[in-house]
Amino acid sequence: MLDEYLKKYARLVESELEKFFIKKIENVNIDDEIKKMVEVIREYTMRGGKRLRPILTIVSYKLYDGKNESEIIKAAGSLELVQSYLLIHDDIIDESDLRRGKPTVHKIYSKKCEKFGRDMAIIAGDLASMYAQEILSSTEFERKDLVNALYKLSEIVENTGYGQILDVVSSYREDFSENDLLKLHTYKTAKYTIEGPMIIGSILAGNYDFKMISDYSIPVGIAFQLQDDVLGLFGNEIEIGKPVTSDLEEGKKTLLILKASEKDENRSIIKKILGKKNITMEELETVRKIVRNSGALDYTQRMAEDLVKKGIVALGNIDSEEKEFLKEFAEWVIKRKF
Amino acid sequence: MLDEYLKKYARLVESELEKFFIKKIENVNIDDEIKKMVEVIREYTMRGGKRLRPILTIVSYKLYDGKNESEIIKAAGSLELVQSYLLIHDDIIDESDLRRGKPTVHKIYSKKCEKFGRDMAIIAGDLASMYAQEILSSTEFERKDLVNALYKLSEIVENTGYGQILDVVSSYREDFSENDLLKLHTYKTAKYTIEGPMIIGSILAGNYDFKMISDYSIPVGIAFQLQDDVLGLFGNEIEIGKPVTSDLEEGKKTLLILKASEKDENRSIIKKILGKKNITMEELETVRKIVRNSGALDYTQRMAEDLVKKGIVALGNIDSEEKEFLKEFAEWVIKRKF
Repeated sequence: MLDEYLKKYARLVESELEKFFIKKIENVNIDDEIKKMVEVIREYTMRGGKRLRPILTIVSYKLYDGKNESEIIKAAGSLELVQSYLLIHDDIIDESDLRRGKPTVHKIYSKKCEKFGRDMAIIAGDLASMYAQEILSSTEFERKDLVNALYKLSEIVENTGYGQILDVVSSYREDFSENDLLKLHTYKTAKYTIEGPMIIGSILAGNYDFKMISDYSIPVGIAFQLQDDVLGLFGNEIEIGKPVTSDLEEGKKTLLILKASEKDENRSIIKKILGKKNITMEELETVRKIVRNSGALDYTQRMAEDLVKKGIVALGNIDSEEKEFLKEFAEWVIKRKF
Repeated sequence: MLDEYLKKYARLVESELEKFFIKKIENVNIDDEIKKMVEVIREYTMRGGKRLRPILTIVSYKLYDGKNESEIIKAAGSLELVQSYLLIHDDIIDESDLRRGKPTVHKIYSKKCEKFGRDMAIIAGDLASMYAQEILSSTEFERKDLVNALYKLSEIVENTGYGQILDVVSSYREDFSENDLLKLHTYKTAKYTIEGPMIIGSILAGNYDFKMISDYSIPVGIAFQLQDDVLGLFGNEIEIGKPVTSDLEEGKKTLLILKASEKDENRSIIKKILGKKNITMEELETVRKIVRNSGALDYTQRMAEDLVKKGIVALGNIDSEEKEFLKEFAEWVIKRKF
């Protein structure tokens, strides 16, 4: 069921996004350079991805008895444009060359020089953010609910920005703790990827009691990030769509790394490798071995499993198709290979 | 009357912004680094500035018989946060160290390293943008009008982004024409600084006929930018709040520069100076002399005057306090020294 749902709604959201971009490109007749930019944002957005955030908005809307399916699919597209926006700016910050196997926006524009690439990517992200607001504000929901959803959408991006701050400073902080990390995952992943999209769906269906959503989303969202970190170190490059050394090269302080660094001898080895450019396969294997042998991998995976269980309990009786989806989704979060 | 209006409403808007930030800082208890960031955005926003955009929103609302003055003052604050957002990102793109005589956001954060400063400033801008949406979406206007105003606010930022693209590519384009430049001014200044804010005020008052607003705003807005360029080359550093060489150092292709470069001998001199770092007073004087003697200064000032006249004609009979303000404002646009 999960698979069927994911595929069906991903396709529907993509077709709405495609319509939005076709119209946008048609209407932007100011200058060729601007048309090209909209084209770049379109291509970047349509490269794929699982479309999890819009799908969660749709599922939550239906869970709370929302009836206008075609309109919620349109609205859900805004979450995907927020995703493009944040990823485009993220790519600059992480200095990533590739996203889903293709050049990042600042890379596309870097032929003239790096600064030009960066400048254009800042603007591209800003534009995608505005497209997200435009898509949501042009839907036909109850005006009162729509204003609240628009407020919420801004708040989601605001909270993700706070998570982003924690992320940026984490690589400079020596005393970054497990607690700091879980806070970062709560803001940068759980609230953004699961809770926020579900709250938007709920508001548009007229439901304003978010307790179940939060109790489900926060643990499942943190588990989602923990699994991402596991895949980032142990996954298959082709399936995860980025070099398996890139988390290490970015100097990402994941729970795996924090836990593995608890012993002094491990810490000094990891410290030498973390944040290095051009990490070799040998260095990668060294880190993998320490993470496995120190018990950090087990610790992380066990925590993720417990969180998923907690999330499923929050759903209560699985008495609807949507709850069944959310249960399967939570289980998938830690089973997935990409 | 102009002065009185400008001062009175600037103060009222500032006091609402201050309230917004106090509440925001109180409620952001995630991490000290995040509180610090909100504090930085607050300080940057409250440094001053003429608050023209919010004031134009308020005047337009009153012109179209809007009655809820306290609420429109709140809503107008969103335009000032959009301004902070765009300036923070602009400062990165222009590599400016100072804004209103104080360090830019990326500069404030650059003690660790330049990249850290840039990353934090990208996030700071993104946050200010969300604050703008939050402020507007939490006002008490008719829900239908509010949704439309929110859509418009996104469209304004979108159009400014397009102007920004034209601006970034202009410094790389050899064939940048007067026509391209006027398009840039229309998007990056006229629509953003005058038309957009006035349309927001008009929508919130329930008026959806924007013809007069556009006929007034576009010419007056272009004149505003032309005067900015004149002040950027001939103004008083203390009054304009930035080094009088900075436009030249940024390589800005203003109408003054385009016109002055029409003669081959002038073009080759200007080309050597434009875009150079650390322009000397002698080089500045050389450019000033060419701009004066070639007639480029007269040409620009005459165009600005004609545009202002055109804008005032669009107002029709000056039969209200608000129209009187708009007339005086248009005249001030080309008389101002800062």
